[in-house]
This record gives sequence, C-alpha cells and structure tokens, in this order.
Amino acid sequence: MTTPLRLGIAGLGTVGMGTVGLIQRHAALLAARAGRPITITALSARNRGKARGLPLDAYGWEDDPVALARRPDIDVFVELIGGHDGPALDACIAALDAGKDVVTANKAMLAHHGQALAEQAEAAGRVIRFEAAVAGGIPVIKTLTEGLAGNEITRVLGVMNGSCNYILTRMETAGLSYAEAFDEARGLGYLEADPNLDVGGIDAGHKLALLAAIAFGTRVDFANVALEGIGSITIEDIRAAADMGYKVKLLGVAQMTGRGLEQRMSPCLVPATSPLGQLQGGTNMVVLEGDSVGQIVLRGPGAGAGPTASAVMADVIDIARGLRLPTFGQPAATLRAARPARAAVAAPYYLRMQLVDKPGALAKVARVLGDSGISIDRMRQYGHEDTTAPVLIVTHKTTRGALDEALAGFEGTGVVEGVPVAIRVEVG
Amino acid sequence: MTTPLRLGIAGLGTVGMGTVGLIQRHAALLAARAGRPITITALSARNRGKARGLPLDAYGWEDDPVALARRPDIDVFVELIGGHDGPALDACIAALDAGKDVVTANKAMLAHHGQALAEQAEAAGRVIRFEAAVAGGIPVIKTLTEGLAGNEITRVLGVMNGSCNYILTRMETAGLSYAEAFDEARGLGYLEADPNLDVGGIDAGHKLALLAAIAFGTRVDFANVALEGIGSITIEDIRAAADMGYKVKLLGVAQMTGRGLEQRMSPCLVPATSPLGQLQGGTNMVVLEGDSVGQIVLRGPGAGAGPTASAVMADVIDIARGLRLPTFGQPAATLRAARPARAAVAAPYYLRMQLVDKPGALAKVARVLGDSGISIDRMRQYGHEDTTAPVLIVTHKTTRGALDEALAGFEGTGVVEGVPVAIRVEVG
Repeated sequence: MTTPLRLGIAGLGTVGMGTVGLIQRHAALLAARAGRPITITALSARNRGKARGLPLDAYGWEDDPVALARRPDIDVFVELIGGHDGPALDACIAALDAGKDVVTANKAMLAHHGQALAEQAEAAGRVIRFEAAVAGGIPVIKTLTEGLAGNEITRVLGVMNGSCNYILTRMETAGLSYAEAFDEARGLGYLEADPNLDVGGIDAGHKLALLAAIAFGTRVDFANVALEGIGSITIEDIRAAADMGYKVKLLGVAQMTGRGLEQRMSPCLVPATSPLGQLQGGTNMVVLEGDSVGQIVLRGPGAGAGPTASAVMADVIDIARGLRLPTFGQPAATLRAARPARAAVAAPYYLRMQLVDKPGALAKVARVLGDSGISIDRMRQYGHEDTTAPVLIVTHKTTRGALDEALAGFEGTGVVEGVPVAIRVEVG
Repeated sequence: MTTPLRLGIAGLGTVGMGTVGLIQRHAALLAARAGRPITITALSARNRGKARGLPLDAYGWEDDPVALARRPDIDVFVELIGGHDGPALDACIAALDAGKDVVTANKAMLAHHGQALAEQAEAAGRVIRFEAAVAGGIPVIKTLTEGLAGNEITRVLGVMNGSCNYILTRMETAGLSYAEAFDEARGLGYLEADPNLDVGGIDAGHKLALLAAIAFGTRVDFANVALEGIGSITIEDIRAAADMGYKVKLLGVAQMTGRGLEQRMSPCLVPATSPLGQLQGGTNMVVLEGDSVGQIVLRGPGAGAGPTASAVMADVIDIARGLRLPTFGQPAATLRAARPARAAVAAPYYLRMQLVDKPGALAKVARVLGDSGISIDRMRQYGHEDTTAPVLIVTHKTTRGALDEALAGFEGTGVVEGVPVAIRVEVG
C-alpha cells in the first residue's frame, strides 16, 4: 500500500512540535516501517504567527481544531491540545463524527470521557489511540493491551508523574524542603500551569484510571481513584524512610480485589532496593503483574518532546499498518462497571509520631496497636528533642480500617503529640 | 467476528504445556480480548503416551509435526519443538506452504533461517511471530517493532540469558566458583541439554541477532555476532569488578556504527548502580535506545512455562485480532545486508593482571598503555601474593585494536605474569 496516511495535527506545543519534527526528520524510515508514507496535511494552534523553529509553510492551517478535524483531506486527527473539555474534546468528537481515526496524548479527556469516546469511535468504525497519554515514551498501553493480552492482570502499579518523582528525589538527595524542591521544579518548567495537577496526583490518577480500564476490562472510573498528593511529605519522612530501608514515591496502584476494584494514587514507601525504589528524577516506571507472566517492569522517560512524540508516532504507525483495536482493548460495550473498593488490600504501614517523654509512653502506643490487631515489624526510637522523641514504626500487614482505629486510639493515650504520619508500604 | 482461531501446537514440553494450560484456563478472557474464541484443534509431540498433567483427549493428535502443520482444520501452527533445523524447520515451512500463520519460540531456527522463512511467509501472505523467542515474557519484539517504530534505534543491549545471569549472580552473592555455580544451575534444570548454548552465549546471541534485524532494518546475521561465553569469568574478576563499582554480566550489544553493524554477546562490566548492574538471578533485561525516546528499559522473566506461554499467546491474540506485520517489522525484501563491524565502538576496559614484584614494574605497564594511546581512569594495586601482586586498571575509552596492542606489549615487559584479563565496560 503506498497511499499516504494524512495527518491533521492540533496543538503545537512541545509535543506537537516534537511530532512535526519527527515526521520531517524520519520520512523515509517511517514509510519503510509503516509500508506507506506518513504525511502532514494541516495544522492547528491558537497562534499561527508564533515562531516555532521548524518550517511549517508546506502544511495547511486551521485556526479552529474542529475545522481541522473535519477536513476531508486528513485520515487521522492528532489531538495534542490538552484539557479534559473544550476544544480538545469538541475536536475529537468532530473527528470521529467525520470518520477520522484519533491519536491523542490527552489523559484528562480520556479519564473523563473515555467511555463515551470509545463508544462513539466503535460505532463509527474508527479507533482512538493514546499511547502518549500514559508514561510518556514508555509503550505501556501497547504492552498491557497487546503484549500481556494472554494474562489475567493482577496488579498495575507505578510512578507515572516525573515531576513528583523529581521533587521527591531532590528532597532526598539534596536535602531540600518540599517547598524548595517544588519551586525548583516549577522554575525548570516541570510543573503544569496548575501545579496541583502534578503534586496533587490528579495527572497521575488520570493515567492510572486508563491503565486500570485496560488491565481489568472495566469502564474508566477516575472518580474512584483515591487521590493523595505529595504536599504533606516532609524531609523528615524521607530521611526516616531511608533509615528504615525505604524510599517515598507517589505511587499509583490498581488492583482487582474480592471486594472490587481498588485504585489509589498516593505517597507510598517502597523498598529502597526494588526497581521502584531505585527510580530517580523525572523517569517513569510501570510495573505490570499477570498470572502467567509474573512481573514486567517498564522504565523510561515520562515526558518531553522526543519521548512523547515517539509514543504519538507509534500510534500513527499502527494505524498506517492497519492495526486496529478497540480503545481499551475490548469492545466498549463489554467493559464492566467495577465496584469501587477502598483500601481493600492489607499492607504494612510506616508510622512516624512524636512521643512525649513519660515513663511507659512506648508501651501505651504498642498496646493501642495490639488492641487494633496490628503487630509491629520494626520500631526505632530516636533521642529526645526537648520534651518529645521521634518514633518510627513499620507494622506487619494490616488493613486501613485497623490502622485508622489505632490512629484514633493514639489520641486517648496522652503520649502522642500532634497527628502521627501514616504511609502505606507497597511492595513492588 | 466469532469464527474461532484454531491452533495446532507442536511440542509439549514446558512451554507447550504452559500454552495449552493458559488456553484451557482463560478461554473467556482470551475470547473477550481477541474478539473471537481461541481453540486448540490438535497437538503433536514425540511421545503421545507421556503423562502431562492436563486433559488433552479433546484435541486431535499427529505424531508428525509436518502433518499437523498441514491440517486443513488449523489456522495457526504453533511451533514449540525447538532446534534450528529438523522437524521444527520442516514443519514451519510446511505450515507456511499450506497457508497457515506461524507462531514460534524458536530463536535458533530464526537466527539461521529467519530471512528465508520471512520471505516465504510474505510470498504466501502469512505471518511469522516470535515474541517468545527473545527474553521470555518480556514483550520486547512488540516494543521494538511497534512501540518504538517512530525511532531511529541507536543501540540495543541487554541480559538475555537468565541461566548465565543466575550463575554470575551466585558467584557474586554466594562466593561460588564458576564450576560450582554451573553445577548448581544444571542441577536446578536451568541449563540446556548442551549447556554451551547457554554459557557459550549462543542462545543469547541468537536473540541479539533477531533484535538487531528489527532495530536496524537489516538481515538477520547471527554469523557475525561476536560470541564469548562466561566460562572464563573467575570469582576474582567478580570480586575485583565489585571493588571498582561494577558487576559482570553476559551482555548483548547491537549498535549501528559508521563502520557497520556491531553485534557482540560477551561478558561485560556494567556500573553496579545501573539497572543492568542491579539485575539479579534469572531475570532478563533489555535496554532499547532510540533517537526520540531516549532509553527504555524492560525487565521481566526470561524463561519458564508461564512467561513464555504469555508471549506465545500475545502473538496468537494479535493474529486473532487481525494485526499482521512482516516478520521483522518491514518487508523482508527491504532488509539490508549490513556490513559487519567488529569492536567499532570505543569503550573503557577493565584489566586484571599479576604484576611481578620488581622495582618499576607498574611504570612499565603504564608506559605500554600510554604507548598504545590508552589512558588510565582508575588503578588499584593489592598486596603481594608470593612474588606477584594483583593489579586492577580501568582505562578511559579506547578501541579494541589499541587494547590488543597493549596486551601484546605487556608480554615484552617481563613484569606481567600470565595472560591479563581484559573485559569491556559497557555503560547502560
């Protein structure tokens, strides 16, 4: 087949220009691999006049991405605008309506409208591809949808927001406070305009919800991702965790349990020697666990022009090659609405508290844990600071319910000052 | 589409029975993901009467795999016999000839006959898939062929033989000699009937040759993989390497250089803190480097019934879904015959030698290196053992040619006892 595959690309930011650049640089390579030329018909962005560093005059232009999506001379609409509603969504709906395939990097849009878009695409006989939406350059969507398709997936977990991992790594390695590391990341342009999308875990939560849908054959259910950001992590926690052999990560975990689908995006402790524990800086890592394969770990750049363009082009090449699958790996109508489960899976917890300098204080704390059925794996008490002493405890596996009971119980002891910090330990 | 995809499976060893078991266990899941049932029509193995632990009476039987490959009631011939010639090759040729698609785990057959088989498949309009042939459960063929298809691949490297990594890990962690660790691995059933396939690097070399073909769009060229096994690695080298911050791995490297395609499968030193350096035991790891994506690291089980069956089924499901690609990602006729390059890429080297206890001995060694244009990054001399002292040197980057010149030069100094050990340092 030598008919070119004709693209309309909307959004000319970092990822959009990375994609245009890749196509310009690798025309021959792409044609060899795809079996046909891949060409750009037209572009769309908010500001046509802006200098973007690459020649764009050969391409058509539409100020309105919806108009681009409907152009009769494009086959694939590449949506790199972003935002979960507005022009991105309007244009994707228009593209499908006009019989175009859609490639998008928009995790927010799919986390909110994935089911409706998948149904529209399948009704129209078109595909929606979104490799670039999750973990940047790592082909995790393809690995999960195709590479591990013979497995019942048991758990998906990972570090899916490089900016948060950068902040946590800088706190750990440079001894910065959260505020200092946050400011540094912002200064480097690592954070979204609304940084809460990053540090609040929302962006990573979108990604987790998409992976869970594929992994478990369920409808995307972002509303039931238990979200907790990294804003409450202190340098003391990072140091104490290191002292006990752990690292702090913003970790996403999706797991099908007997009580339903558990989805969490929250700070967790992971063993310092595990692949997740060894992950530094802005790199992403996704761990996929299946009943046949065991554990597969994927590691790579989670953002940036090159890696994201690589993922966009993988989707485009698949379409050029005629590889066509339902959006979430099986027909949208067959995706089940999973019962959400919160903290259904038991885990060890790390506790940090300030213990008042009184005889029998530690015994009281230990008794509260015992009364809640929680046993202690390891405990460490440090020297007194004024009238209190920091105490670190790693429990054996327990439920969140039992832990909450114990946390409430500490209040009545009169020996725990302030609110104890409790962080789940996830074994990768 | 609800027409079943009908398999004929030849070879009922670990992988074959793992595949049969997976299909029996997951019929509903496979049908949901593939969009159609996946069924087994008939089996073939050398000994029909052998107890295999799963019910097989519902399937047809052929003593001759070629007869199975030609059965009109199968769509896909699944070749899990092994061996680079003989029944496996005969049956695959017969299957393609009879218009069947082929799924195989046979790296040796493809390393030797991949080009001819790919040409036959394409002429017949059939596909050959071989995810299970490389790195067991890790979907590395799919990642390279599809997930990174938008990249010019710059380097492929990795640990692709779990048995060798097990032996090296046991030498390192338990202080075993090579012979002891080898015997342990053989006792655990980790080694092929001809163990030289593992420890001689041949099996891993087959895998590297297949990855190189996809990565660089070249014809499979196993004959030009520079092979070196792990048999000469001593516990002293492992300890000395650890002392300098490195681990010893049987590492495959394929790289397109200005002088041609370099393919090596040989013991290398990698930084102890790198993902490759941290890989323990039988796990595999493949590192893929592309111009856009940067570096992607894949880690997972390299062998075993479950992981290999997972890879076989990924290929089967792709075929059921209608995903059809040329064997090596682009038409066989477009694959170039690459000029082979040996040691074209400069690297640091680790040297270990026994230095005779004479005044000026170290200076003589240093002068030989300097005369060959090799500068020293780090050097360590230990206390004397009788009349000689062990000396470790890590050089700055140098060519293999310069190194060989220096190694020859040491002979004339009269201060180096025996033959120095030289191991390349590969930075993952």
